[in-house]
Amino acid sequence: MINICETKAMQAVVYEGPFSISVKEQPKPVILAESDAILKVQVTGICGSDLHMYRGHQKTTTGHTMGHEFIGIVEDIGSEVSRFKVGQRVMPIFSPMCMNCWFCEHGYTNRCTNGPSFGSMALNVGQSEYVRVPYAESTLEAIPDEVSPEQMIIMCDIFPTGYYGAMKALMKLKNGRETAESIVGGTLYAPSVLQPSFKQQPLILGNGTVYAVDSVEDRLEEARKMGAIPLNLDTDDIPAIVKSVTGGRGADAVVESVGNQAALKLAFDVVRPCGVISSIGFHQSGFPFTGFEAYSKNIDINMGRAAVRPVFGEGLKVFAENQDKFADFITHRMPLAEAPKAYEIFEKRQARKVVLTL
Amino acid sequence: MINICETKAMQAVVYEGPFSISVKEQPKPVILAESDAILKVQVTGICGSDLHMYRGHQKTTTGHTMGHEFIGIVEDIGSEVSRFKVGQRVMPIFSPMCMNCWFCEHGYTNRCTNGPSFGSMALNVGQSEYVRVPYAESTLEAIPDEVSPEQMIIMCDIFPTGYYGAMKALMKLKNGRETAESIVGGTLYAPSVLQPSFKQQPLILGNGTVYAVDSVEDRLEEARKMGAIPLNLDTDDIPAIVKSVTGGRGADAVVESVGNQAALKLAFDVVRPCGVISSIGFHQSGFPFTGFEAYSKNIDINMGRAAVRPVFGEGLKVFAENQDKFADFITHRMPLAEAPKAYEIFEKRQARKVVLTL
Repeated sequence: MINICETKAMQAVVYEGPFSISVKEQPKPVILAESDAILKVQVTGICGSDLHMYRGHQKTTTGHTMGHEFIGIVEDIGSEVSRFKVGQRVMPIFSPMCMNCWFCEHGYTNRCTNGPSFGSMALNVGQSEYVRVPYAESTLEAIPDEVSPEQMIIMCDIFPTGYYGAMKALMKLKNGRETAESIVGGTLYAPSVLQPSFKQQPLILGNGTVYAVDSVEDRLEEARKMGAIPLNLDTDDIPAIVKSVTGGRGADAVVESVGNQAALKLAFDVVRPCGVISSIGFHQSGFPFTGFEAYSKNIDINMGRAAVRPVFGEGLKVFAENQDKFADFITHRMPLAEAPKAYEIFEKRQARKVVLTL
Repeated sequence: MINICETKAMQAVVYEGPFSISVKEQPKPVILAESDAILKVQVTGICGSDLHMYRGHQKTTTGHTMGHEFIGIVEDIGSEVSRFKVGQRVMPIFSPMCMNCWFCEHGYTNRCTNGPSFGSMALNVGQSEYVRVPYAESTLEAIPDEVSPEQMIIMCDIFPTGYYGAMKALMKLKNGRETAESIVGGTLYAPSVLQPSFKQQPLILGNGTVYAVDSVEDRLEEARKMGAIPLNLDTDDIPAIVKSVTGGRGADAVVESVGNQAALKLAFDVVRPCGVISSIGFHQSGFPFTGFEAYSKNIDINMGRAAVRPVFGEGLKVFAENQDKFADFITHRMPLAEAPKAYEIFEKRQARKVVLTL
């Protein structure tokens, strides 16, 4: 029910400025529209993209709650929400989507005109005890029985975002009018090769091989377990290796999921002429290549936030089938009160994935 | 037959530096490989992309022949060329392609590893009395009976390049995984709406409407006759108009065929979030938008030289069916000797299309 008079407080992870966060009181959210739901959060994740704000690269205000990955129990619900009920365990798909604007109606839920982002001044909830979820009917998903609730943190953003980035790249290769079917290598490009689609930078080669690029050995080892060939950004000559395994051409497609100029530059350097860059990293600055270079290489690039809703179902299916490979993916579990420490170790790459528990 | 001793001279349009060309002697080309053909040129066109060199924007050497649009009669032919015979009237498809390298084999004829470009130091022919055509078997096409030879100048580059640019944009809209079929508007996107695909900048809206942007009234009038809605770059507030006819969203797709930063910036400004920019203009400099802007708008952009070979057949069909609309497209016919004057009036936008006759 709508109750705009309630002004209780809750604990939340608040952005105070670069490298400065605190856990402090914020207003406990209440139902503001009949399409809202209020969740009592049980576990919330720190995403790689939260680091853009933490490091001060993302220009933003201060004083608001951070985060957009969380699992919670429905505590209150507006009258227009029929898919969920109080007491049910649910999770958001990345960011709120109204499903009524032109963009949502056409599948571009990533650019919903009406949905504010979690972890912002406009929607001051996320890594907090309670969350108001606008457009709950379309923004939330139930937690399936076969996946552990904690594991589903991975499905809030990083897995479906990586999945979207890889699918976008593969579709372009497959559907490119000038592309022979033979490039794609048939079933080699099935989702089974796309599992290393968390926040790393996979290079996809025409024979179905996936190379995963990172500078953290622990993450590269995870990628290797999932079937990718790991390349270390600090110690491997990545352009040379990619050239050597592609007859000098370069990778057919690169999924760039980091969101800085160095990563996009590497993607450009290793992709072959007429290849595809699928960039899902949250970019904050300029372009690391020129129009002349892009023309000369006939580059095909898509950029921006993933449209997770359209791929969530198939992404979840792949994730559920392979959840054993993610059994050790979350390396750190810390109470919400220790969020400053959790951000610190995650930023220093001392953790693969950190969740905060409540 | 191969004859590397012949050193006769011919007249050619030679690049001397920015805004400086001359018509002077160059070596008459001879067969250098059994896959070559020698053409005696009858008519040769000045392309908008020749102006990049003429204006000094394209960094290049001087002293070589310009041009890449020509119609000619086969005068001599290597033993490996079987599709054509001496005396036949033919034209090149844009630039030489070997059809044997990895790129050609996979349909990326625009990035053939072996084919040098006409109008360069590597292939010093084009707007000249004679042309050596490498890989003649795959680079040449016969002139169909139903189209006038002079008209086929339009098919050397500008029509199929525009066609490719538009098809690339439409395919991305159609095949975009997040795109509902309803965006595309069914048959409204058939090639019949794509006819203004010469060197202008069409904006493609979801309902099948095509807007053509140019600053030359004469060209805009041509675009109007072909079914596009003309917009004048100098007098129309193009972003405002596009917004007003799209409910504030912007164009679904923009085909950018100019090749400068201002054109690409306009394309970016008028395309809607999650829209498509298909850029076939020959870019010489930087990017007019940042990674942050591209991320925030979820842009999907392909850049680079058109792969004409894969779309030539269907492009020719559309062109032949609509050739009456191009009856007045070539506005100026001048002898090769008057090339300096021809470039001058074309550069000053006093001609829609100039051909040089021999």
